[in-house]
Amino acid sequence: MTFSHSHLLGIEPLAPTEITTILDLAEQYVALNRREMKHADALAGLTQINMFFENSTRTQASFELAGKRLGADVMNMAMQASSIKKGETLIDTAMTLNAMHPDLLVVRHPHSGAVDLLSQKVKCAVLNAGDGRHEHPTQALLDALTIRRAKGRLHRLNIAICGDIAHSRVARSNILLLGKMENRVRLIGPPTLMPAGIAEFGVEVFDDMKEGLRDVDVVMMLRLQRERMDGGFIPSEREYYFRYGLDAEKLSYARPDAIVMHPGPMNRGVEIDGEIADDINRSVIQEQVEMGVAVRMAAMDLLARNLRARPREVLA
Amino acid sequence: MTFSHSHLLGIEPLAPTEITTILDLAEQYVALNRREMKHADALAGLTQINMFFENSTRTQASFELAGKRLGADVMNMAMQASSIKKGETLIDTAMTLNAMHPDLLVVRHPHSGAVDLLSQKVKCAVLNAGDGRHEHPTQALLDALTIRRAKGRLHRLNIAICGDIAHSRVARSNILLLGKMENRVRLIGPPTLMPAGIAEFGVEVFDDMKEGLRDVDVVMMLRLQRERMDGGFIPSEREYYFRYGLDAEKLSYARPDAIVMHPGPMNRGVEIDGEIADDINRSVIQEQVEMGVAVRMAAMDLLARNLRARPREVLA
Amino acid sequence: MTFSHSHLLGIEPLAPTEITTILDLAEQYVALNRREMKHADALAGLTQINMFFENSTRTQASFELAGKRLGADVMNMAMQASSIKKGETLIDTAMTLNAMHPDLLVVRHPHSGAVDLLSQKVKCAVLNAGDGRHEHPTQALLDALTIRRAKGRLHRLNIAICGDIAHSRVARSNILLLGKMENRVRLIGPPTLMPAGIAEFGVEVFDDMKEGLRDVDVVMMLRLQRERMDGGFIPSEREYYFRYGLDAEKLSYARPDAIVMHPGPMNRGVEIDGEIADDINRSVIQEQVEMGVAVRMAAMDLLARNLRARPREVLA
Repeated sequence: MTFSHSHLLGIEPLAPTEITTILDLAEQYVALNRREMKHADALAGLTQINMFFENSTRTQASFELAGKRLGADVMNMAMQASSIKKGETLIDTAMTLNAMHPDLLVVRHPHSGAVDLLSQKVKCAVLNAGDGRHEHPTQALLDALTIRRAKGRLHRLNIAICGDIAHSRVARSNILLLGKMENRVRLIGPPTLMPAGIAEFGVEVFDDMKEGLRDVDVVMMLRLQRERMDGGFIPSEREYYFRYGLDAEKLSYARPDAIVMHPGPMNRGVEIDGEIADDINRSVIQEQVEMGVAVRMAAMDLLARNLRARPREVLA
Repeated sequence: MTFSHSHLLGIEPLAPTEITTILDLAEQYVALNRREMKHADALAGLTQINMFFENSTRTQASFELAGKRLGADVMNMAMQASSIKKGETLIDTAMTLNAMHPDLLVVRHPHSGAVDLLSQKVKCAVLNAGDGRHEHPTQALLDALTIRRAKGRLHRLNIAICGDIAHSRVARSNILLLGKMENRVRLIGPPTLMPAGIAEFGVEVFDDMKEGLRDVDVVMMLRLQRERMDGGFIPSEREYYFRYGLDAEKLSYARPDAIVMHPGPMNRGVEIDGEIADDINRSVIQEQVEMGVAVRMAAMDLLARNLRARPREVLA
Repeated sequence: MTFSHSHLLGIEPLAPTEITTILDLAEQYVALNRREMKHADALAGLTQINMFFENSTRTQASFELAGKRLGADVMNMAMQASSIKKGETLIDTAMTLNAMHPDLLVVRHPHSGAVDLLSQKVKCAVLNAGDGRHEHPTQALLDALTIRRAKGRLHRLNIAICGDIAHSRVARSNILLLGKMENRVRLIGPPTLMPAGIAEFGVEVFDDMKEGLRDVDVVMMLRLQRERMDGGFIPSEREYYFRYGLDAEKLSYARPDAIVMHPGPMNRGVEIDGEIADDINRSVIQEQVEMGVAVRMAAMDLLARNLRARPREVLA
């Protein structure tokens, strides 16, 4: 088993074999989660702290369940109501937590790079649960596991990522992961929601859904991130759905066995037609959630093994 | 032991023998809770999720303690700050949680029927912790256990339920349970707080406390649910206390050994005189809270046994 | 081992030998927390409830981790969103919790004396996590352990407590503890932030930092408690820093090996210069946080032993 990192900060530093290591271990946890007796003890005696500087019920719940099912002591810190309000800096908060000797620190933060910075100040393993527009590695890993289970492989697939690419760390982490695993990635969305310089990532860019979806194996829809749009172009929901929402007609351009994905929570009738979202022959949206718990169990298990194998670096 | 249900959605579907089964098992957990070592492992390895769409510190705490004492992994979802805000529907939320493979889902929701609907969408056992004006089955069960312990039986008693009947799911579940167990139930309250068609339930209705309390064995006071009164009659607290608040004089019309109950939290001096609430010879209000933990342990234990005994139905 | 109390309500009732007992046991837990496998079972099967009527992310987290690492079932009650809002009194809340049979109740409350009052109404062990301007005993104990580890002893030291003494329960508990252990305590701060009658406590009072810090072994800075200043003198941050903020020049008056402490969260550039706070040769601020977990483990362990050794008193 290959996985040599102290933190999981993004997809960027991971080698393809490391991605495979995580997904293979996660497969075992899928089986465990589906059995009636769920406990394993990979994290027994370890302390996991979830620090969410942005609300995210579903991601936090997924990490919390993942830790508890592996026997960790899990503590949620409500960072809105926290010392941050009293004027403490992010670094002081990190150093305070570090002094309490956690083993795993799961962090979501609205600023790109904040989680990396924090990881340099603590002695425990840090998992990025989403930082600004930068990365959301466990989301890309759970998407990868879902694709691999549905398609039987994770390479040489045609995958379309559709919608609000510019504001999406989910898109960014997926582009990195799918590229590393040698898939062909297409981005589809309005030019105003397409980041500058995206062509460097080796992707094809479309602004027409029908053209972009032609013959793809996977259709990955994104959430419209209204809360991250400051000024600039904010499309009306109706117009957005008309041009970029996934409906039966647009989906008919993809391969007949193409799967449909969405990271949730969905805006039905804005990004995706409700019937397609619920179509168990096409949609793997619920399976994505299930894979999320398994992938997070695997990532925390691997990081904990590395923690145990190495003396911890002293905090600078 | 008879208890054949997959969910605990209300008192209505329960047979009298099933109510007795729950209360008998709860008795064992009362003893367990009073011992110094409190752990049992009936729910070890199982995941309990508390989803409260309405705040309720005391009910949520009771379910949380019940689960933890039986060894479950318990997760609280703060539904106000959740995906619901991001426009996700109740059903999408339920299906998302379902995909995380919980075993027990404890739900409180402001809309009558919402918990039933949700139970049809998930593969785990659902417990109704209160839905709109519909049912609050564990409250009725804890009241029943409290009465049975104080009176030595749970049948052929005269029981008065007093106050804001119209807005009370507590009243509704209690009327159903006490009727099934062959007690005589009287409802006392202002006509404006009495639901239409209540006579069908086989109860007697009074609007005068002294008349209604005459010779009862049990006086069950209700909370004034101001937060559920939209428009309509809102009595002044002073007038309400004068006419319907339980004081020594009104209580003197009940049997000398009548017990006094309140589901809490109490408005002292509105629904009930503080001295009566604290009178350990009459008031069983603290015992109700104690029985709440035990009854919830019993209900979750029985549902978990059924979960283990049966293959789970596939989610439609 | 000497520790005969049922509750930890303040430093005032503790004998010097009892303080030493807590600190000695805490030393063992420091070692435990630093090892990779962290679990002990001193609180296994016990229920700990954290009731914070004032927000305090760091203190609550410290108590939560302490309990979980000793195997307790820990439940956090968000008291802002609680029954208190529905008009329930503090005593009713306490009696409700008491009926759920907790073993350890950790309470923070904005009113001095509220925690003592509550302890008289319940059958479990109560720990004061800060009550108004009264006491914050675990803070004083963690400060004492930090000093003892840095200085090799906890007596005959010169210790300066600096800043907003009047609003600080931290100062009050520290003055009591350090006095009991036979240290010389100096208070430094603006006369408007110095409590009346403070001279009775056997301390020296200064309003000039350089004079007060001369030759001290320990410099203990306090947080400026703006949120507790109602009317009266509120200094500007700039002026406060100029006169009372700890900078290199003022610190040069202390002994060359003097340590610098702060209970956190810090206002850098108001109470303390950032560089001094981060100077690992002088600042023990991170160690204070670490000692906090250990001291709370020790205090809860000792109280639990007493709980188990004695029949619980019946609630009046």
